[in-house]
Amino acid sequence: MSDYRTIDPAATEILEAAKDRDISTQFDRYEAQQPQCKFGLTGICCKICIQGPCRVISSKKGADKGICGARDYTIVSRNVARYIAGGASAHSDHGRDIAHTLLSTAEGKAPDYRVRDSEKLHAVAKKVGVELDGRRDVDIAKDVAIKALTDFGKYTDEPCTWLDVNIDDERKKKFKTTRINTPAIDRSVVQLLHETHMGTDADPVNIIFGGLQAALADFTGMSISTDLSDILFGTPEPVKTSANLGVLRKSMVNLAIHGHNPVLSEMIVDVVDELQDEARKNGADGINLVGICCTGNEVLMRRGVPMATNFGSQELAIMTGALDAMVVDVQCIAPGIQEVCNCYHTLVISTVKFSKIPGSAHIEFDLANARESARQIVRLTIKNFGNRREDLMHIPAFKKDIIGGFSLEAMLDIFSKANPKRPIGVLSDAVQSGEIKGICAFAGCNNQKVEHDAAIIKIARELAKNDVFLVSTGCSAGAFSKFGMMSQEGVDLYAGPGLKKLIGRIQDASGVGLPLVFHMGSCVDNSRVQQLWHTLALDMGISVPELPFVATAPEATSEKAISIGSWMVAMGIPCHVGVMPPIDGSPLVFDLVTQVARDVFGGYFIFETDAEKAAAKLLQRLESRAWRLGVHRKAAEAYNTSANVLYES
Amino acid sequence: MSDYRTIDPAATEILEAAKDRDISTQFDRYEAQQPQCKFGLTGICCKICIQGPCRVISSKKGADKGICGARDYTIVSRNVARYIAGGASAHSDHGRDIAHTLLSTAEGKAPDYRVRDSEKLHAVAKKVGVELDGRRDVDIAKDVAIKALTDFGKYTDEPCTWLDVNIDDERKKKFKTTRINTPAIDRSVVQLLHETHMGTDADPVNIIFGGLQAALADFTGMSISTDLSDILFGTPEPVKTSANLGVLRKSMVNLAIHGHNPVLSEMIVDVVDELQDEARKNGADGINLVGICCTGNEVLMRRGVPMATNFGSQELAIMTGALDAMVVDVQCIAPGIQEVCNCYHTLVISTVKFSKIPGSAHIEFDLANARESARQIVRLTIKNFGNRREDLMHIPAFKKDIIGGFSLEAMLDIFSKANPKRPIGVLSDAVQSGEIKGICAFAGCNNQKVEHDAAIIKIARELAKNDVFLVSTGCSAGAFSKFGMMSQEGVDLYAGPGLKKLIGRIQDASGVGLPLVFHMGSCVDNSRVQQLWHTLALDMGISVPELPFVATAPEATSEKAISIGSWMVAMGIPCHVGVMPPIDGSPLVFDLVTQVARDVFGGYFIFETDAEKAAAKLLQRLESRAWRLGVHRKAAEAYNTSANVLYES
Repeated sequence: MSDYRTIDPAATEILEAAKDRDISTQFDRYEAQQPQCKFGLTGICCKICIQGPCRVISSKKGADKGICGARDYTIVSRNVARYIAGGASAHSDHGRDIAHTLLSTAEGKAPDYRVRDSEKLHAVAKKVGVELDGRRDVDIAKDVAIKALTDFGKYTDEPCTWLDVNIDDERKKKFKTTRINTPAIDRSVVQLLHETHMGTDADPVNIIFGGLQAALADFTGMSISTDLSDILFGTPEPVKTSANLGVLRKSMVNLAIHGHNPVLSEMIVDVVDELQDEARKNGADGINLVGICCTGNEVLMRRGVPMATNFGSQELAIMTGALDAMVVDVQCIAPGIQEVCNCYHTLVISTVKFSKIPGSAHIEFDLANARESARQIVRLTIKNFGNRREDLMHIPAFKKDIIGGFSLEAMLDIFSKANPKRPIGVLSDAVQSGEIKGICAFAGCNNQKVEHDAAIIKIARELAKNDVFLVSTGCSAGAFSKFGMMSQEGVDLYAGPGLKKLIGRIQDASGVGLPLVFHMGSCVDNSRVQQLWHTLALDMGISVPELPFVATAPEATSEKAISIGSWMVAMGIPCHVGVMPPIDGSPLVFDLVTQVARDVFGGYFIFETDAEKAAAKLLQRLESRAWRLGVHRKAAEAYNTSANVLYES
Repeated sequence: MSDYRTIDPAATEILEAAKDRDISTQFDRYEAQQPQCKFGLTGICCKICIQGPCRVISSKKGADKGICGARDYTIVSRNVARYIAGGASAHSDHGRDIAHTLLSTAEGKAPDYRVRDSEKLHAVAKKVGVELDGRRDVDIAKDVAIKALTDFGKYTDEPCTWLDVNIDDERKKKFKTTRINTPAIDRSVVQLLHETHMGTDADPVNIIFGGLQAALADFTGMSISTDLSDILFGTPEPVKTSANLGVLRKSMVNLAIHGHNPVLSEMIVDVVDELQDEARKNGADGINLVGICCTGNEVLMRRGVPMATNFGSQELAIMTGALDAMVVDVQCIAPGIQEVCNCYHTLVISTVKFSKIPGSAHIEFDLANARESARQIVRLTIKNFGNRREDLMHIPAFKKDIIGGFSLEAMLDIFSKANPKRPIGVLSDAVQSGEIKGICAFAGCNNQKVEHDAAIIKIARELAKNDVFLVSTGCSAGAFSKFGMMSQEGVDLYAGPGLKKLIGRIQDASGVGLPLVFHMGSCVDNSRVQQLWHTLALDMGISVPELPFVATAPEATSEKAISIGSWMVAMGIPCHVGVMPPIDGSPLVFDLVTQVARDVFGGYFIFETDAEKAAAKLLQRLESRAWRLGVHRKAAEAYNTSANVLYES
């Protein structure tokens, strides 16, 4: 057994091999940070003004309030709300950049970009009410981009376009009556920071509702990001590639793209081909492009770029000694990568003005000269190939085949081969017939508080065995890709009889080899997951809180994961989180998000750090919802039939 | 000597009188929170993702980085940046509400409001480029409001209007070359949260510059707030009133308005007169309206409402037993006030949707029926008069006369009596002749880490004695008002010979009795302070970093104080803070804001917790700048004449 808390064999091998070297990774630093502050862990540390920090213990007189008088529930809810604000900001600012790129493209200011997916452009334009008839794509694109940018900053009070067009009437009404409709993305974040400023809101219920408004802003920004990225770079279609550190090639220039925003990385994919010869002249067998985290997911989904690894093991890609450059854009780039580079030749190249790492190279990406920026980066990487140290090279042999690229459009296209008239019916009929128990979406990050990748894999296998249809995004998708669960082999090994039958039927009809877990994209692409449940609920004529659809983030880490979970809950989805977020310092807030939320929105959080129990709870939720739909009569005995709350889901 | 750390005699008396009752105030809770967490105090605790909290000690191997690899400088700078984001959000969201009120007024949706200051409307319209000729005020107001709201959410990249029109060409160039121009208020905040999201920016210099962009957003929002509040409610003019808890009246219904936003409180001032009879019928001698914190400052400046007390002692107003209601809007309302009400009859009434306190009454203010909302609140207060307990009544006798209302317009109007052709010349000539050493602005809050009001008063007396012209806003102004320093008496007692001569000369010419410290308004009105130095620098033909103008926040507490200080520094003002903010966990960030900032912007922070030393440092800065202007030759010996950095100011 490894000293290290990971089930990834490639990660274990690298960590073991580097054991005697003086290298610090996230795995080591997690240990060094133990024990972590109990106040911080439970959310009852307040640093919102500089009279503090205050730490409250509700049971201890004198210490039961902060200096201003804020109680545990105020402090915990403010901290949670500010996590949501951070997550919504990161996601939507990413969406803003995509919208800005589309606008620049339409205005001729980004000559290296073009609308690659005219069909998606037309579909989005139609959805958001942009005139199509007789217009050129470039003009339609400009209007779509401006409409998207307007969602960020308009001052009128109607809901954002990208929120309003993507939800059903039942949710529209719900968000209106609970006053959490987002009038503008940026404004919702700023108002939430105001609400949580010292001495503004002290009411935890109010604060959590403010948080949900910002979470819907998060959703809006993510939807913009997905839609407009598809327009610019193409809507993903099934694509075969491979995953884990074994994708690195000893004799080739290895370039990893890491972060979240595809604007630069798409250009890098484009220029790699034209620079293969330069690499060969430099003594390499060409250039091997690989992905990490969500930039990795973006180019995997659209271009079939192999996935090197996910968040928790990002430093280990450098520790193979075979990575010539790690090109980073924004979010989830552990600054620790630069320190690892002190021992290896890898060049970390940051590319975004507001995202640098001391000690790393910085080539500021220029939208007006995108291709040239990308070339400059690839050339620097080629040059660095010569600096490799053979004695430090160690590429683990682990690599798995995967099939990715399952945008909702791609899924429906495949489903249409089995059910041409009602493609989504393939899935909804399987739910209604009881062939599958429902759908579970895996999202979120890696988190050192739990064993790397372990719960993601364990929960998924358990759900698959019990006939749950699985989709995934983000670093959970990274885990599945590394473990062969995004392949046909995964179906053979882990699917229960119903699920196997369903996937087999679609496979036979479509001729596309299908995986156990459907890769729906990067973390902003949880918007695709939402569109999946939205489409299903519409098809079944039910509201989202009635649908047997659950979500899980077994290793939630970033603020983005918290904001995604929050809007999923607001949309009506039970959402499991496998790491205890800092809220149990307030029983009131804990109850609010795990219980009261169910009565109001139908969705709610399930906190469970034990993977087996988590799988059981998720299954139970699916069965309960299926039973209420009247399709799983056999489950009836297990549940109290007299419950009559609005959404006992 | 009192057990309590305040120099305010009224506060001491109340605290002493309530000593044996089981009442917890900010003074007690500060003690209960000792010792405060050292990691939090120095800024090296990171809670930005839920792998944490991480606490780093740069000198300790293993613990020198967070789990992701973030070092002390990354963690400290991110925390500081997020303080700025919080401050900018609170201020500018306040500004947004004023802009929204002006727009609603212009559109006939807020029938109880009107443009009270047509002259200011025209001046602002002219400044921001709104057409005046032949147009009705209501149409001009609509355009001004929309122009302001556009500054919050536009998607183009030119600087915000309210930033651009308020600074000189030298600063425009500076903000452009340092890339900190704010393109839109909300966007700057959201981008800063993105920049400080886990795994985005790790570069402390970059992060601090991102913070400065949001700080300029803060300035923009504050300028909008001041300008549009003046348009709606009138530009302040000199007004006589009084301050400290002695303003409460035993036989009258006492209603305190507390918070920051004048939209509701202006309406309360309006309806109090019409409801005096109702109060009398209810057994009181009428209604006595008083202010607390910045809502207090707003109505003091424009309507002469007496000031009961400032932030640190807000709970003590309730502990007089004579306050029938405390009506609160947003920001700096200590939730502890509600607990104090368990022992007293006072009704806390919250009025803003996103700002509630569990246990308090809530009457949601309705812009469309503003007068009726205000009446409802006042009537509830009158009713509560009957619930008083005579045995708990204790109104301290302390009360000081003050003169407030010194908007820049009012000051220039007064100055014009002494210098009709060049009103600002009254002040700039006094600087250039050496009659005064310069100008110091007092801003900021109260902070329990230091003795309540003590440093504010001590530093001001020292500066006044040394002929520094003093202006003030916020809770510093609250302190001055309570201590008689905003009165003619203050001049007699504390002004040095030069300052006394200057104030005397203006007083003689204008016939207006002038104070030692000029009250320029609430904390958003630091925009007035900026306009004062801007006007002075223009008149003197120099840039702001050359002007002998300093600022101090002896008791900075809120995120707003940090954002104000940050834009003051970016504007070129040396800015003293009397409470150590959580930055000394990173020597790099400490040096950045106290030293490097000087080379780049001319402004910089001075952290000094000793009031005497702080006064000496502020004086030294003024003398140094004055000497460089060539007006204080006698100071030459004290300074190294060979220094040649850009702004050795």
